[in-house]
Amino acid sequence: MTRRKISILGSTGSIGENALRVIRNLGDDFQVALLSCRNRWESVLQQARNFGVDTVVITDPGAARRARQEAQGVRILSGREGLLEAAARTDIDLMLNALVGAAGMEPTCVALSAGVDVALSNKESLVMAGDLISRIRQQTGAHLYPIDSEHSAIWQCLAGEKPEEVRRLILTGSGGPFRTRPLDTFSRISVEEALRHPNWDMGAKITIDSATMMNKGLEVIEAHWLFQLPPEQIDIVVHPQSIIHSMVEFVDGSIKAQLGVPDMKIPIQYALMYPRHAPAPWERLDLTRVATLTFEPVDTERFPSIRLAYQALARGGSAPAALNVANEQAVYRFLQGDLMFTQIPDIIANMVEQHPWIPHPDLDDLRQLEAEITRQVQEWPGQKS
Amino acid sequence: MTRRKISILGSTGSIGENALRVIRNLGDDFQVALLSCRNRWESVLQQARNFGVDTVVITDPGAARRARQEAQGVRILSGREGLLEAAARTDIDLMLNALVGAAGMEPTCVALSAGVDVALSNKESLVMAGDLISRIRQQTGAHLYPIDSEHSAIWQCLAGEKPEEVRRLILTGSGGPFRTRPLDTFSRISVEEALRHPNWDMGAKITIDSATMMNKGLEVIEAHWLFQLPPEQIDIVVHPQSIIHSMVEFVDGSIKAQLGVPDMKIPIQYALMYPRHAPAPWERLDLTRVATLTFEPVDTERFPSIRLAYQALARGGSAPAALNVANEQAVYRFLQGDLMFTQIPDIIANMVEQHPWIPHPDLDDLRQLEAEITRQVQEWPGQKS
Repeated sequence: MTRRKISILGSTGSIGENALRVIRNLGDDFQVALLSCRNRWESVLQQARNFGVDTVVITDPGAARRARQEAQGVRILSGREGLLEAAARTDIDLMLNALVGAAGMEPTCVALSAGVDVALSNKESLVMAGDLISRIRQQTGAHLYPIDSEHSAIWQCLAGEKPEEVRRLILTGSGGPFRTRPLDTFSRISVEEALRHPNWDMGAKITIDSATMMNKGLEVIEAHWLFQLPPEQIDIVVHPQSIIHSMVEFVDGSIKAQLGVPDMKIPIQYALMYPRHAPAPWERLDLTRVATLTFEPVDTERFPSIRLAYQALARGGSAPAALNVANEQAVYRFLQGDLMFTQIPDIIANMVEQHPWIPHPDLDDLRQLEAEITRQVQEWPGQKS
Repeated sequence: MTRRKISILGSTGSIGENALRVIRNLGDDFQVALLSCRNRWESVLQQARNFGVDTVVITDPGAARRARQEAQGVRILSGREGLLEAAARTDIDLMLNALVGAAGMEPTCVALSAGVDVALSNKESLVMAGDLISRIRQQTGAHLYPIDSEHSAIWQCLAGEKPEEVRRLILTGSGGPFRTRPLDTFSRISVEEALRHPNWDMGAKITIDSATMMNKGLEVIEAHWLFQLPPEQIDIVVHPQSIIHSMVEFVDGSIKAQLGVPDMKIPIQYALMYPRHAPAPWERLDLTRVATLTFEPVDTERFPSIRLAYQALARGGSAPAALNVANEQAVYRFLQGDLMFTQIPDIIANMVEQHPWIPHPDLDDLRQLEAEITRQVQEWPGQKS
């Protein structure tokens, strides 16, 4: 068996590190050909040495300069150009995109355009450019393999099934840390409180998205593009234990669910090895120890981001991209401590409403829209400054 | 599309009636060619008129005689010979076997031998003659489609998956009405108490099997033959709400589950329409209304039948058949009020232990074994007489 060549964008984050653990466990299946990070140059060089990787992208130019001094034969690309050059490499069999935020969108488009299959953790790719990505894939035939635990669950439940026999997708969400917090205290939510997630260990941006439940809203949009179903056929159920990762209901009333311990290595490995379940030694689920699974409807008064996401998806065109950029920038300002938690949805609603709507945005349109909304959110009056 | 010809053995029971509801809902997919019952001749004649069925088997000779007087052109077969004649009909595309107990075994073997596909609700067929049925199917290529909700769940979870990637099957069981009853009161369990099942509406024999959890033990044996996995790879988890119907764990730690309202029409329809999920208007599951699913280990001190079933499966040969016949006859005596609830497992253990064990029983062996164990259980000293 020849080893498949894989590149990992965002290799020093939580998904990237788990992907390397999965690849190590798989043994000879993959050759890691390229890694990328923003500025954690020492970590990425260590990863490169451990996996015999000859090329590394470090997008932060200063970090790239420092890395070159210690590179010991590893080729260092830098900047956004370096990242896009890496994404365009046609000798790669599979690109794992674990970048965070809108920055991940263009590499996904570039790789798919080059005919390279993509294992996608960067949900913003599909949220912002779902329509464009569908068109690219039709042209090149490149595959897209979801890594999000929810979409991996749905994908697994659809194995051997016909899309036209699906009645609806049911995305589960933990409800985050504020599921039961009194609503009138939401404006006082601190960054520290919002960063405490009960079930998953993720990066800061995604953890805040989980606290606002925008994460789930983005996943509805992502599911729409991955599984080609209209918003009315995509539901959300709050499931605080995060054991059932998502479900599919069929037209005969039968429901299939995928479950397991909250461990991203399982969906990562499935995306890498699809359609195989390859043996893995990770911790196994013992339902008798978990003992209780609960389910609640989602409360869109508490989590207005969900409603905003459905509205943006229904409006289509550039609306989901505007939603995503506005959310991302608002979250960064919240993390910096100069916005209230409750301002995040207000800003998003305003940006989606006010932005110059485009029916079929191309990459240039999306880049411009990103720049413009980023600027506007940065200028939004803060409440703590 | 030509209508597929179906015969339904045991059409006046709960599964048979639900099967007719499913067929009615499907419209033109099936032509009901034959029905059978033991003695409810008025019901079966009514069903025959409703579905334009020309042949009916009534195994009780007295009931068959009375039915002939009102048959109005419907051909009436009677006795065990009539049933086996019906099972041997090669013009039938699918035989649904909803007979209860050991009596269902031979028709399954006869139909499969004739190359007729069987939708199997009669779990005793595989419990008693699993080895023989495997050999018959290899010869004729006839298919076996499970109807038990647990096995249907596993079957659905295996769609599109490779058997060698399965780590284990996880059968769920409600735990029945005595899951939390003080163990020292088990000898005083009345027939009425044992007939009250919290989740499913079934016949009396199966309801008692659910109360002893022998039902789950028989299902382990059935699963072994259906999915070709050793007993060590078949587990049981108690799940009182009966919403998750069963699960499959794969070697990568991913688990798939099938769930739904406790409605046998769903697995019946899946067996009839496999591999399709056909549209159906039955009640749908709303997990936010169910709200809580719980899971516990199975307690084999409380439910010794489970242990007996695993032991019989491990011993193989005629042991599972002996277990099944002993259980069936002990349950009938319990239902008649002349055995204590706790005598059921005692009798089973004794019969499995004492019967003349045969490594590869054929139909004649199984018939003899059935007659002999039936006689012995009937002679077992009762505790209430």
